[in-house]
Amino acid sequence: MSNPAPVKHPVSDLVARRQSPYAIDGRPIPPEDLRSLFEAARWAASSYNEQPWRYIVATMDDPETFDRILQCLVEPNRAWAKEGYALALGAVRKQFERNGKPNAHAHHDLGAASATLALEAVNRGLVVHQMAGIFPDKARETFSLPDEFEVVTGLCIGHGADPKDAPEALLEKDQAKRSRRPLETIVFGGEWGKPAAMLSD
Amino acid sequence: MSNPAPVKHPVSDLVARRQSPYAIDGRPIPPEDLRSLFEAARWAASSYNEQPWRYIVATMDDPETFDRILQCLVEPNRAWAKEGYALALGAVRKQFERNGKPNAHAHHDLGAASATLALEAVNRGLVVHQMAGIFPDKARETFSLPDEFEVVTGLCIGHGADPKDAPEALLEKDQAKRSRRPLETIVFGGEWGKPAAMLSD
Repeated sequence: MSNPAPVKHPVSDLVARRQSPYAIDGRPIPPEDLRSLFEAARWAASSYNEQPWRYIVATMDDPETFDRILQCLVEPNRAWAKEGYALALGAVRKQFERNGKPNAHAHHDLGAASATLALEAVNRGLVVHQMAGIFPDKARETFSLPDEFEVVTGLCIGHGADPKDAPEALLEKDQAKRSRRPLETIVFGGEWGKPAAMLSD
Repeated sequence: MSNPAPVKHPVSDLVARRQSPYAIDGRPIPPEDLRSLFEAARWAASSYNEQPWRYIVATMDDPETFDRILQCLVEPNRAWAKEGYALALGAVRKQFERNGKPNAHAHHDLGAASATLALEAVNRGLVVHQMAGIFPDKARETFSLPDEFEVVTGLCIGHGADPKDAPEALLEKDQAKRSRRPLETIVFGGEWGKPAAMLSD
């Protein structure tokens, strides 16, 4: 399944090997590994160290909760994500706990925590495929979220499927050329839209 | 300066050693290393692979742009961030490029990219301290941001200061006990607010 990023500049193996595969298999993951994934998320940086992130998580060993999470995903995601050993929802606290003011960086910081979780998964030979395609209101209702919280993402956690076992259509999707915008179009110097000097130094 | 996270469950060295120090020194960073930092950000996951993240970056070798970025930080951040070798602003495209619809995950995905950048910095013996304390409107004006973009964060990039050279007040801040919410208060199972089963399996 491995299809490392065609990087232009060297990066850590964890970064280069992280991907969001569709072909995932549901072999059990030891709870110690799952704990380490969320522990990694826990140590992400956040605005005022608020740590606005919260996760709802279930493994296949708790089919009822697993299915309640699954039903919060849009149908096209359900089709492949049901194969993962664990499903999670990523949520945020919208206001700072210490003063009740809106936390403009809550989503940003959840993104940091979940990215850290996904890199820890690589470290353990696991894969994480995050999803924007969820039903936040359904998730709020299903899990009785307090008003100050909001569900933002879904996460499917599993082992990368062995190519010989994976459905062909998903494998093709995973083995397609991985692409990103050129660095020159996302890293600017003194003038917006013009590549930073350090890109060509 | 190193003050690794007191983790409860093992995590990758990159994750455990990442921190957001105040004591940063401005020794030059080879441009190859800076490129690898932004390359790592580039390969983060994003909703529909939109890659909404953009960065404005300047090193001390371009004092004019460095200062323009510095002036976009709130004063308490300017005081220590001016010591970093490079400063950056993290921005997002607010709408999807392909259909012009609002991208509800733009901030989330910038958070993922910047967290990946920060972990790549650890991989290179560098430190990144991200800041929510910036003036987004001033940044928009200073760098003539198009309407569809928004500046969200500041980033200070440098070497961790040698304890013997760092200002005592900053060192104390950095060497204080690092803390996070207990895992049981951020990772729930079928019932909101109740720890997930896998935490005690």
